[in-house]
Parts: sequence; C-alpha cells; structure tokens
Amino acid sequence: MYQQEVKIRVRYAETDQMGYVYYGNYAMYYEVARVEAFRTLGFPYKRLEEMGVGMPVISMNIKYHQPARYDDHLTVKVTIPDKPRARIKFLYEVTNEAGKLINTGETELVFMKMDTGRPTRMPEVMEKLLEPHFA
Amino acid sequence: MYQQEVKIRVRYAETDQMGYVYYGNYAMYYEVARVEAFRTLGFPYKRLEEMGVGMPVISMNIKYHQPARYDDHLTVKVTIPDKPRARIKFLYEVTNEAGKLINTGETELVFMKMDTGRPTRMPEVMEKLLEPHFA
Amino acid sequence: MYQQEVKIRVRYAETDQMGYVYYGNYAMYYEVARVEAFRTLGFPYKRLEEMGVGMPVISMNIKYHQPARYDDHLTVKVTIPDKPRARIKFLYEVTNEAGKLINTGETELVFMKMDTGRPTRMPEVMEKLLEPHFA
Amino acid sequence: MYQQEVKIRVRYAETDQMGYVYYGNYAMYYEVARVEAFRTLGFPYKRLEEMGVGMPVISMNIKYHQPARYDDHLTVKVTIPDKPRARIKFLYEVTNEAGKLINTGETELVFMKMDTGRPTRMPEVMEKLLEPHFA
Repeated sequence: MYQQEVKIRVRYAETDQMGYVYYGNYAMYYEVARVEAFRTLGFPYKRLEEMGVGMPVISMNIKYHQPARYDDHLTVKVTIPDKPRARIKFLYEVTNEAGKLINTGETELVFMKMDTGRPTRMPEVMEKLLEPHFA
Repeated sequence: MYQQEVKIRVRYAETDQMGYVYYGNYAMYYEVARVEAFRTLGFPYKRLEEMGVGMPVISMNIKYHQPARYDDHLTVKVTIPDKPRARIKFLYEVTNEAGKLINTGETELVFMKMDTGRPTRMPEVMEKLLEPHFA
Repeated sequence: MYQQEVKIRVRYAETDQMGYVYYGNYAMYYEVARVEAFRTLGFPYKRLEEMGVGMPVISMNIKYHQPARYDDHLTVKVTIPDKPRARIKFLYEVTNEAGKLINTGETELVFMKMDTGRPTRMPEVMEKLLEPHFA
Repeated sequence: MYQQEVKIRVRYAETDQMGYVYYGNYAMYYEVARVEAFRTLGFPYKRLEEMGVGMPVISMNIKYHQPARYDDHLTVKVTIPDKPRARIKFLYEVTNEAGKLINTGETELVFMKMDTGRPTRMPEVMEKLLEPHFA
C-alpha cells in the first residue's frame, strides 16, 4: 500500500451557486492528489509524459457525503491499495478541517504510449520506486 | 423510462495537454444533459431552485471508453430509468459524430430543501410531468 | 468588419457562490464565440491547428457591467473590426435575454507555428475568406 | 503599497491541447493571489462575505507574454498600488521557476452589499489593516 495526504484550498471559482464545491471539480482534486503522491514517491508525473507515457483515466466512482465550501482547507488522502500492473487504482478520501468526511472516490488509470495511443507497461523506474511499498 | 438526447460542442478550454477532453469535465456535460432533459419535460431545473429545492449529486460513476477531442460535436443520451422517489437516477451515454462510444456514466441525486439542507420529496408538479413516462 | 452572434446557455458549473457567472469564465465564452465566427466564415479553427498553426491570445480586456446568472441564454456578439495582419483583434459584447449588457471585451491573438512556437502569417485560405468583409 | 507573493502549481486540468495553461484560467490564479494577500493581511475574504459584503470584479486586463505549462510552480506577485476607496485595484505579475515573465494583469473590484447588490464602503476593519501600508 502507498499512501499520501495532500492539502487543497477551495477556490471561489470552484464553488457553484448552491454555495458548494461543484460536484465535477473533485476529479481535479483527485488529480492533484495523485500527482503529488507521485512527486513524493520521487517520480513526477510530468517526467512520465516526457518519457512518452501518459496515464488516461478509465473509470471514476465518487460517493458524495457532505459538501465542501469556499475557502475550506481540504485534506485528500490518496491510496494505491494494490501493486499496479497494467492498471493502477487510486482511492481517495476527502475531509475538511473539522475532520468531516466530504467524499470518497476511486479511479483506475492505464499506462499508454502517447504517440500511438496503445497500452504499455508501467516504466521500470516507477515500478522500482513503488515496489518497496507492496512487499 | 424518460430519455433525451442533447448535443454538446467540445470547447478548447475543456481539452488538456493530452489533446483529450479532461476527464473531470464530463460531470459538466452530464449536468447540461439532465438540465436540458428537465427543460424538455417542461420543468426547468432553475424553477426548482426558485421553489427552494435543490438537487445535489450523491454519487457518480463513469467508465471512459474513448477520449473526446476538441470541437467534437458530442451526443449525450440521458435516461431516467426508474420512477424517481427520494432519489433520482440518471444514466448517460456519450458518443461522437462517428457514433463511437466515448463514455457511459450514472449519477444519483436527491431532493433537498435549500434553506435547511434537509432531504425533501420531489415537488408534485415534477412528479406529474414524469408520471406518464413510467406507467 | 466581420460580425457574428452566438448563443450560450450558462451552465451550473459556471456559476459561483455569489450566484453569478464566475468572472474568469467569460474568456471561455469569448473563445466559443470566435470559434463559431470562424466556422460560419467557412474555416473552422480546428482546421487551422491541423495545418500546424495555432492562435494564442496575447491580450484580453474585459469590462463587467452586470452579472450573468444560471441558465441565462446569453448572446455573444463578436466583431473583427479591422483587417487582420500579424495580429487579429476581436471585440465581444455579451447581453442576456432581456437585452441587458453583461460585459464587453477585447482580445488580440497572433498566428503561431505550433512546432516552433514562432510567429507566422495568417494562412492564405483564411485571408481570402476574410477579405470581402474588409473591402 | 501592499504586496504579496503566492505560489501556484499548474494542474493538468488547467492545460489545453496547445500544452499551455488555458488563457482564461489566469483569472482564477489572480483570485487565489488576492485572497491569499487578504489572508496574510489578517482579513480572509470569506469573513467579508460573512459580513454581507462581496467584491465583484468590474474590470480585468491581461497581457500574455509567455505560456505557462503543466506542473510549473508559478509565482503570482500581487500588488495593491493605491489606497482603496470605493474601488480597489490589484496588479498581478506571474513568473515561472526560471524567473520568466508569464503575464501581467490588473483587476478592479468594488465593495457590494450582497443582499441588495448595491455598492457600499470598504468595511472599517479592513481599512484599518490596509492603512499602515499607504502612509
């Protein structure tokens, strides 16, 4: 298992007229969280694309418990529960400063050669960095 | 069953550097589709909020099949499969001009009194408009 | 002078907790308007990028008069006031159904070779389509 | 003069298919910068709205020099050049890690009673916090 916590401050642009964070914006918070998890691991996602490999999302599930609101300082806990192979799964748990659960989510991504759009293996360098966490 | 088709043109702002529609933007396309479905039914969502009732989303699931791209003229087919009660479920199917399946999704929403944030029933006027489709 | 009117329906995602269209979203409405203006002219912007030419924005000015609101069916009147050369200027005027002025804006764009990032001339085919409007 | 520097990491969602930060997203970066400037001053913008006062934007001007790109760690330097009265002006300067100028911008905002939509004075508590910087 690999796990990180990332802090995100809700922007005004991200609220809607109900006074909530718009329900579609959590996909972006999840993206920020998994990118920062990769950075902490020692392999920024940007470098992956520079190697010609992208990671498109193939599924996303979200359960909304409470709305987040403007200026909330959210914590996104991101977890890679299983050793990734062709696919890599991420779990997310968003909470606010009061510790209230905002939502939980899950995404699956694949590794893809960006020039051909064909699936590919996870780069070895990334595999080596992840390995110790799934021993 | 109640079903509508809505056309959406992909904006430049909605693409990402992979050249795809950013995966989080489909939540917005789904919103547009269900809003237009309500309008066609004869009850604009806006009027619902004017009556003090909002419809927050409580869950969303998406399966991504193919990326949509800049300037694609997408069709979002939105379906209310079951007679709504406390919750209302929407199914979505996004295809491009070539008829290729882009993604499928599902959202569940509830009816909520906007002043208290408490659950409420579907307004009777909306129930009456939906009823004939679930006979 | 070349002029077009484009209709845009305000999405829930585009509002903020003040109940207004977020001030940054008009840049996107302007984009939609100039893209549709090019399409009507007979030269979709997409084709320009397929020819290897992009049109980055180099300046934008907006004066906000009234807020637009959720579900407003806006009219964006877009004008190319002068015969474009190295730069192309667009003026925008956004009004709501009641004819109230929402905002006015102006953007300047340049033509750029997408592989090198260097400035380039407007493609001849586009020049030919614009010419009759600036006789 | 009152001045602050705020760091913003470019999200994947904020790029477009040109590989640039979409030109409309800088309005959001400017918002983040002025909100953090207020927080540092000791008066979070959120508290202002809790007092019933909002700050709608009445004009924005941007000059784009260089594109920002995915994962760039931008610095937004925000300046209040003059003692605010009915209006408050903010200047912005966005640079990347290499110190390259990305863009410069300017916004003007007013103070507005949120219940009536009418202009109002800057709250005294905010005036007191700003005063020492314009002696």
